[in-house]
Amino acid sequence: MQATKPSETKVVLTGIKPTNHPHIGNYIGAIRPGIELVSQAEHSLLFIADYHALTTVQDPKELREYTLSVAATWIACGLDPERTVIYRQSDVPEIFELAWILSCVTPKGLLNRSHAYKAKVQENQTAEKEDLDFGISMGLFSYPVLMAADILLFNTDIVPVGEDQVQHVEVARDIAQKFNRVFGDVLKLPNHFLKAESVVPGLDGRKMSKSYGNHIPLFLESKKMRKMIMKIITDSTPPEAPKEPKGSVLYTLYKEFSSINQANELANLYREGVGWGEVKQMLFERIEEYFKGPALTYNDLISHPEKIDAILKDGGMRARDLAEPTMKKVRAAVRG
Amino acid sequence: MQATKPSETKVVLTGIKPTNHPHIGNYIGAIRPGIELVSQAEHSLLFIADYHALTTVQDPKELREYTLSVAATWIACGLDPERTVIYRQSDVPEIFELAWILSCVTPKGLLNRSHAYKAKVQENQTAEKEDLDFGISMGLFSYPVLMAADILLFNTDIVPVGEDQVQHVEVARDIAQKFNRVFGDVLKLPNHFLKAESVVPGLDGRKMSKSYGNHIPLFLESKKMRKMIMKIITDSTPPEAPKEPKGSVLYTLYKEFSSINQANELANLYREGVGWGEVKQMLFERIEEYFKGPALTYNDLISHPEKIDAILKDGGMRARDLAEPTMKKVRAAVRG
Repeated sequence: MQATKPSETKVVLTGIKPTNHPHIGNYIGAIRPGIELVSQAEHSLLFIADYHALTTVQDPKELREYTLSVAATWIACGLDPERTVIYRQSDVPEIFELAWILSCVTPKGLLNRSHAYKAKVQENQTAEKEDLDFGISMGLFSYPVLMAADILLFNTDIVPVGEDQVQHVEVARDIAQKFNRVFGDVLKLPNHFLKAESVVPGLDGRKMSKSYGNHIPLFLESKKMRKMIMKIITDSTPPEAPKEPKGSVLYTLYKEFSSINQANELANLYREGVGWGEVKQMLFERIEEYFKGPALTYNDLISHPEKIDAILKDGGMRARDLAEPTMKKVRAAVRG
Repeated sequence: MQATKPSETKVVLTGIKPTNHPHIGNYIGAIRPGIELVSQAEHSLLFIADYHALTTVQDPKELREYTLSVAATWIACGLDPERTVIYRQSDVPEIFELAWILSCVTPKGLLNRSHAYKAKVQENQTAEKEDLDFGISMGLFSYPVLMAADILLFNTDIVPVGEDQVQHVEVARDIAQKFNRVFGDVLKLPNHFLKAESVVPGLDGRKMSKSYGNHIPLFLESKKMRKMIMKIITDSTPPEAPKEPKGSVLYTLYKEFSSINQANELANLYREGVGWGEVKQMLFERIEEYFKGPALTYNDLISHPEKIDAILKDGGMRARDLAEPTMKKVRAAVRG
């Protein structure tokens, strides 16, 4: 078997917008599968899209807090900063330079059709606003171009995304094709990799989301975590009555953090009849156990932000080194 | 009298889009008054907006040619690169980083109302295009934000502009105010300085403009310049008939390059009766004389592009040094 040539190895790139402290829903839906993906990749980059978050987070303290929290969480959960280049978007100025260049070959119409923008316009329509662009910033309108730059700067092959982000990778492809047509074959066309969608239920049974306020934060202090778990809404079935595990929030969450055997044991308990309080205690203990190691790392990093800063700074420099060859080609192609 | 404190000295910034070889109309309308202005300023910057020109010039050879030509022309005509920081926009990545940050506080509606964008939409309306954004790139749509970054990055006090550019300085002010409201008092509000409008007639008597093809290039080789001047359209008044200097293209151009005495002499000749051929010869000789020194410098620079590159590179580094304090404040304000 022939060894894979470096030029044939794949570059996987993931971006995270630091708009909140990661919660258990983020962990199951994005962080765990994301870490699995990048640890299989030959070359991987993970960036904290802090300047992208600026469209909504306009408080420097909050932005810094979320940035540190996201970085610490991914690292605590197993991302290896030696293997994966982890960096702050704002530490790589080439991204913004490329974004401007790309904007000159991007038809405005392409962005008029962006889902995120159209959703905002729809909201304004529903609210019967006279100005359909009410409350919409240029950052929100043009960020698909920034995302294209995020992706194309690193010769990315694969961008793991959820259903709602597929359009962005397609826009990046479109823009790259446009650029190549005008300026020559410089930019690599990226592909999206559709992540399995996992709907993680929150405290009230709806999809876990910060905007619903039904989320369970990661790395909560033990007592607070127990209190949080105890808040999960259950029905009034008496303890001794047999219960159906499927569709139960407690069981669904428990399964995510257990071996098949452990999950089967709980399913059996459900069918035999078990009190909700007991299941909640089991879930709490399972989560505690599961995140014991990561919580230690997370707490160490968060109480030493200079360690996170150093990792991100180092990653930023490595990212700039990786970006340099592409940027050189782009500059030569556009300005001679 | 108290000496002016450094903090009170004014920063004057001028940008030139390299979309053509400068012609005599540019010289009279922009270059000559521009050089006069910056030579009076305590701190002055002049940049070649090459990445801005990308919205229309999408050929690297052309862009480089125009960039070198614009820089060489300004220097040949008297701009002192020691006194005035002269740089290529594309050499200052901070501009694009700041542009992104500003876009996050810029309402999209502000750009919907931009003159340049509205003019394009109007064109599409007139042409009965179904898509009113037909042929409009994101670069064209969002460049007032880039211009705001160009201006605000350098704590600019004064931007000399023509009537059609006043809106851009106002947009930059608006954006700076928005930024300061959200993130604290960081950006200095710039003012425009309205340049006197001088309508320079071209070969056919209409305003001299590359788009009309009626322009007289600067630094033409002697024979070509003579031929060009001879092409200026005149009427069929016979040589001996008295003529009115006012409104005459030849007289108007001659006056721009003469002392009052010289201009009066020509006016007298007009009134006495003079042949157009003779006046054309006089104008040709006047222009030759006027640009003799600058032409030497220009030709030397253009035949040694490495000299221009070195000047622009040095200017780029000085510009980045000047930008650093503002950028540090901006970064601290937005990302903590």
